[in-house]
Amino acid sequence: MTPGAQHPDAPAPQPLRSDAERNRERIVAAARKVFARDGLGASMASVAREAGVGIATMFRRFPTKEELVDAVFADRMDAYAQAVAVALDDPDPWHGFVGYIEAACAMQAADVGFADVLTAVFPGAKALERRRDEAYEGMVRLIGRAKETGRLREDFDPSDLVLLHMANAGVVSSTGDAAPDAWRRVAALFTQSFEAPARGPLPASPRHEALYQAMLRTAPAGAGAPAPDKKG
Amino acid sequence: MTPGAQHPDAPAPQPLRSDAERNRERIVAAARKVFARDGLGASMASVAREAGVGIATMFRRFPTKEELVDAVFADRMDAYAQAVAVALDDPDPWHGFVGYIEAACAMQAADVGFADVLTAVFPGAKALERRRDEAYEGMVRLIGRAKETGRLREDFDPSDLVLLHMANAGVVSSTGDAAPDAWRRVAALFTQSFEAPARGPLPASPRHEALYQAMLRTAPAGAGAPAPDKKG
Repeated sequence: MTPGAQHPDAPAPQPLRSDAERNRERIVAAARKVFARDGLGASMASVAREAGVGIATMFRRFPTKEELVDAVFADRMDAYAQAVAVALDDPDPWHGFVGYIEAACAMQAADVGFADVLTAVFPGAKALERRRDEAYEGMVRLIGRAKETGRLREDFDPSDLVLLHMANAGVVSSTGDAAPDAWRRVAALFTQSFEAPARGPLPASPRHEALYQAMLRTAPAGAGAPAPDKKG
Repeated sequence: MTPGAQHPDAPAPQPLRSDAERNRERIVAAARKVFARDGLGASMASVAREAGVGIATMFRRFPTKEELVDAVFADRMDAYAQAVAVALDDPDPWHGFVGYIEAACAMQAADVGFADVLTAVFPGAKALERRRDEAYEGMVRLIGRAKETGRLREDFDPSDLVLLHMANAGVVSSTGDAAPDAWRRVAALFTQSFEAPARGPLPASPRHEALYQAMLRTAPAGAGAPAPDKKG
């Protein structure tokens, strides 16, 4: 069909999307690309540049980096929650647990920004954090079931998954394209260390509140800072 | 003794150190502090600021960041090599191996800059890299002995220690002061995963050349770049 032609049965053309909406979509698409490549430390300015919009437009659409993170990663967090749901559906809870670890670490390897998302909290990213909370509840159930089967060590704590993600983020960011599968060996070593019976006792887990504080401070500088010029 | 007074038996006073030498020492001391706090990503400008010297002076003393890294961390790498030597002296090679892992991970936790040093190579940092090579040779011997005792899994590869350091760097940088002991649990999980008999097979190790390339690209941006103004 030639451009501009209308199929006789086609519905009436939609009204043109507003400039605001178009800019918003361009910014989100650009941020998806920049964050995936450079992690959440990438500046708002570099996202604006990639999107081909001015910094003022950028901050008008996304007054804080947290709002941008929310827009970019909420659906990625959906996929993460989905990995937990798949694991919960597995008739063998240990098999489900191992599969979840591999899926979650693979998501980190595929997107440096998402690797960061799993090691930080963004209180202002409402949709993202709501999905994270849901995924967390599912993980706690998954851990309980895997322990009941006797395959997961008894002293395993949900915070061990946070530590795993912090460790994997380090591996993924250090190896990058040069050794893109190195994370698989690390994830497998972790999985084997989680298997019962435990080889020995472990140092205590960090308190959950302390780990939450760590995840708050891990959020890249300025992630929650107000925009320098909201009117711009 | 009052300032300026000379004890009668004291040797003749040393000639004043030159400005150049004093500036060098101030810069190294400042870099030690800034890198320990912020990691090797800290800029040369922030080191100059901390040292209270101009950027031109900074680059006159240290034309490249690699030379500064060399000056700051060569002695830290000595301590690291010493941890390997202590492990090699242990009559129980597995006990020595476990102690080395704990000591090396503790050094990463104590100094974010050194955590980075163990995950990157700096070909221009001659003294540092010579010491690293020596430590590596010792580690290979240590691994061989620990395998001979049957306590270290047969498929353990020296590159697993690099992956461990990359993982631990991620944990240390994410947890920081908020959960300063979290790395201990991670190091213990790794150690248990290394213990024979293996719980199962592992994905292949990255090729050593690939991991070397990863460590080259991990070196913070500009680490080996020539100074913008060597004459300044």
